[in-house]
Amino acid sequence: MTTTPFVRDQWYVAAYGYEVGRELFSRTVCGEPVLLWRTEAGEVTGMSDRCVHRRFPLSQKPSHLVGDQVVCGYHGFTYGADGACVNVPGQRRIPRTARLTSYPVVEQDSFVWVWIGDRELADEKLIPRAPWLDQPGYTTVSGMEPLAARHGLLVDNLLDLSHETYLHGGYIGTPEVAETPITTEVDEQAGIVRVSRHMEDAVCPPFYAESTGITGRITRWQDIEYHAPCLYLLHSRIAPVGTPPPDADGGDPDAFHVEVVYAITPETENSTHDFWAVARDFALGDEKVSGFLHDNNRTVVLQDVVALDVLEKAVAAERDGYQELSINIDTGGLAARRILKRLAEEAAR
Amino acid sequence: MTTTPFVRDQWYVAAYGYEVGRELFSRTVCGEPVLLWRTEAGEVTGMSDRCVHRRFPLSQKPSHLVGDQVVCGYHGFTYGADGACVNVPGQRRIPRTARLTSYPVVEQDSFVWVWIGDRELADEKLIPRAPWLDQPGYTTVSGMEPLAARHGLLVDNLLDLSHETYLHGGYIGTPEVAETPITTEVDEQAGIVRVSRHMEDAVCPPFYAESTGITGRITRWQDIEYHAPCLYLLHSRIAPVGTPPPDADGGDPDAFHVEVVYAITPETENSTHDFWAVARDFALGDEKVSGFLHDNNRTVVLQDVVALDVLEKAVAAERDGYQELSINIDTGGLAARRILKRLAEEAAR
Amino acid sequence: MTTTPFVRDQWYVAAYGYEVGRELFSRTVCGEPVLLWRTEAGEVTGMSDRCVHRRFPLSQKPSHLVGDQVVCGYHGFTYGADGACVNVPGQRRIPRTARLTSYPVVEQDSFVWVWIGDRELADEKLIPRAPWLDQPGYTTVSGMEPLAARHGLLVDNLLDLSHETYLHGGYIGTPEVAETPITTEVDEQAGIVRVSRHMEDAVCPPFYAESTGITGRITRWQDIEYHAPCLYLLHSRIAPVGTPPPDADGGDPDAFHVEVVYAITPETENSTHDFWAVARDFALGDEKVSGFLHDNNRTVVLQDVVALDVLEKAVAAERDGYQELSINIDTGGLAARRILKRLAEEAAR
Repeated sequence: MTTTPFVRDQWYVAAYGYEVGRELFSRTVCGEPVLLWRTEAGEVTGMSDRCVHRRFPLSQKPSHLVGDQVVCGYHGFTYGADGACVNVPGQRRIPRTARLTSYPVVEQDSFVWVWIGDRELADEKLIPRAPWLDQPGYTTVSGMEPLAARHGLLVDNLLDLSHETYLHGGYIGTPEVAETPITTEVDEQAGIVRVSRHMEDAVCPPFYAESTGITGRITRWQDIEYHAPCLYLLHSRIAPVGTPPPDADGGDPDAFHVEVVYAITPETENSTHDFWAVARDFALGDEKVSGFLHDNNRTVVLQDVVALDVLEKAVAAERDGYQELSINIDTGGLAARRILKRLAEEAAR
Repeated sequence: MTTTPFVRDQWYVAAYGYEVGRELFSRTVCGEPVLLWRTEAGEVTGMSDRCVHRRFPLSQKPSHLVGDQVVCGYHGFTYGADGACVNVPGQRRIPRTARLTSYPVVEQDSFVWVWIGDRELADEKLIPRAPWLDQPGYTTVSGMEPLAARHGLLVDNLLDLSHETYLHGGYIGTPEVAETPITTEVDEQAGIVRVSRHMEDAVCPPFYAESTGITGRITRWQDIEYHAPCLYLLHSRIAPVGTPPPDADGGDPDAFHVEVVYAITPETENSTHDFWAVARDFALGDEKVSGFLHDNNRTVVLQDVVALDVLEKAVAAERDGYQELSINIDTGGLAARRILKRLAEEAAR
Repeated sequence: MTTTPFVRDQWYVAAYGYEVGRELFSRTVCGEPVLLWRTEAGEVTGMSDRCVHRRFPLSQKPSHLVGDQVVCGYHGFTYGADGACVNVPGQRRIPRTARLTSYPVVEQDSFVWVWIGDRELADEKLIPRAPWLDQPGYTTVSGMEPLAARHGLLVDNLLDLSHETYLHGGYIGTPEVAETPITTEVDEQAGIVRVSRHMEDAVCPPFYAESTGITGRITRWQDIEYHAPCLYLLHSRIAPVGTPPPDADGGDPDAFHVEVVYAITPETENSTHDFWAVARDFALGDEKVSGFLHDNNRTVVLQDVVALDVLEKAVAAERDGYQELSINIDTGGLAARRILKRLAEEAAR
């Protein structure tokens, strides 16, 4: 497997809004170090995390914020929230080119999205939505785990949930996940892959049994929507066997709904920010359920992290031309690879 | 010194038999990750340690054995002892090509030998023997130390024992080792190098004094047989000065014999599995002697490991075209390099 | 920024004299491992730290000195102080080519200087001087900090002291350093860059206030002389505001003088030996002042080390063709880069 190239001219999740405040914060996205901070008015602003002078990282102490200006900790070059340099040492004249690349930033659905690529093309309306993450009627737990593996391995992982049975047995996996065939729909144009697996009569895994209180067998639906390159949504519906299906206008009062959201943000060619969030429409104020889902989902994510970090080493050491074998369960993952490749090529033109 | 290339189409020691049981066990040989396990009937079986699907290492938890089948811990691909896939998730049909590379394996002389290369050429009769290691009349201690150095540096090391005087002084080295000239015989065709050093009147080093009980000076013979690429035998004969030589039919009742055996197995281009064993024909049931020889020889091996790890870093950092200087003591080592080069070229054809 | 190449055919500081004694001592200079030791007569001698036989580092135990001979710890090759081999194992004849590269060495101004390059060109008179470091009338504190950054980043750092205000605020930096313009003189032929900043009325930073006892504002002169490639001198003059300037013949009895000396010695392409020394002409016998200046200057050097180690990683990860922006304060640093480039090219001819 060759490295999946970065797809530029795209929105990526760089952080949760709660990670960005009045401390200088840096996160590398698609190989670009992005400095994030919140102005005194509360707006998140993003700019290159390298001083134009001698490339000192502006996130590195003793660099610091003074009001809405960033002061470089090496020689004191000072920048406004738009990236323009406003002060340099030893002289009055500020070179016209003294300006940090600034990044289009949108804070939405609890995420801080940044645009990587040609800023003329940055259109907020292209950002895919995950509204449950900060919407009344849902309670969300979330986190981010650093992954020492290329992002393509995480895309593979999430688009083929048959691995839940084996890698996440005892948490979210039961025999039915691996046994039940999937249906896959690909919208090549929009760059969306949909993979569905509807288990009509399945064991309820601990993740759902503990959080919902269901004790018997369940109908379990997994409806994946992957919006390449970054956003992954898993609409999970859990209901005791015999619960009526959703009605014509979408009402589904007797089922439990969990929206599992991942943002898959490449850091470097061989590392990835693995953002995860779990939103539920039940037990909204129940701290115990929140704590359980946070810890249980984080454990599951870390099982993936261990596996994918191992895979990255295997991939990095393998000979050129190594051949994988794909089967039906891989239909979604292969479509995702194809779309990522096309998007990367289009952006590179 | 350029990297000595791997010699393929050869038998290599992958493990001691006692390392392989009903837990999945992995060892990389010549860059190939080999999964080893013992069937319920007790046979050692070897196959590629990469699932054919998404290359997950089968030695990695939660992969596991069920009877005589290996279940991949990522998506549940399941393999029989011959490497054939017998189960895949989400479908009945198993692709015809779903088969792990299986490795010819022979368990002999306490070692697990695997064939690296074209399996059509694997001939058990080509495996060199070290019968003392599990033969009545001998007691053996053994171990394996990982070496962060290319295997060629260990071949050099073992074929020139003059280093015992300096690197292993106080253990197995005495002044006579470095001072006494060697005789070298090379069987280019068979790929065997023989280096002999017969010290007729030498100090008895602690390694032999403690284990044999000899207190005075000794006749000490070192007869090396290196069977390229993997097996190294040092026939060591120790006897008080004045002991008659072996008689015509090989009888040598008044001398002590120690068979020091190394298996030199390349792991990667820059790392090596350094298997070592010491078999003796005296004090057979004496645990104290066994403990002493184990600890003392392991100390000696670790002195080599430290030195060769340092050498590897020196080699890796040196400029191209660096020239070594060789003298008489290097005759065996240079012959070994020549044979390894020829074998590598022949296998690459 | 491309890697500044090593400048060969030059003198470099390899060590302080006090680091070299009767223990084998190794330091890599411009990628060459140099073995340093002191003969029984007290002379420092320098030779390649690689045995001619199998490149074992002679600084590595159990290699050792016997009188004025070095014995290799691997096979016992033995060398005199001139690098000639005098003993090899197993034979009487010593190959004519068995000789370690020896390095011209001069011990001067407390430093051990070694010549890297064509030894025919080694001229002691080319070594720049820093006489204060072991001269009556001065007391010196010194040290060396390893830098995981290319030497060019340290040259940049030291030639632009405006960074004191930001990186070393609270130690040696005050606002006036960054605000006061510099004058730069370049002697291209001699390879010397001079950068001066005379602050006539400035805050006295703790480094000077504590050591001199001055409580009010000061006249502070910084006169840099960089002798490419290795030696950096900062003549620092501190005097209470109103003190008369030096008289015509250089007398300056009412001012305090601190000679800050750095030797910038490339270890590898991406690491540097950062030697630093602080000589003063006041409080000569005051241990408390010595302790304060040692600890305070070391803290300042370590602030640079942290910053430059971060910069090295930024440089190593950046795309080709990355553009810095330079302003007036960089005049000296850019001149230094130009001279280093020319010297490297001349030596490579």
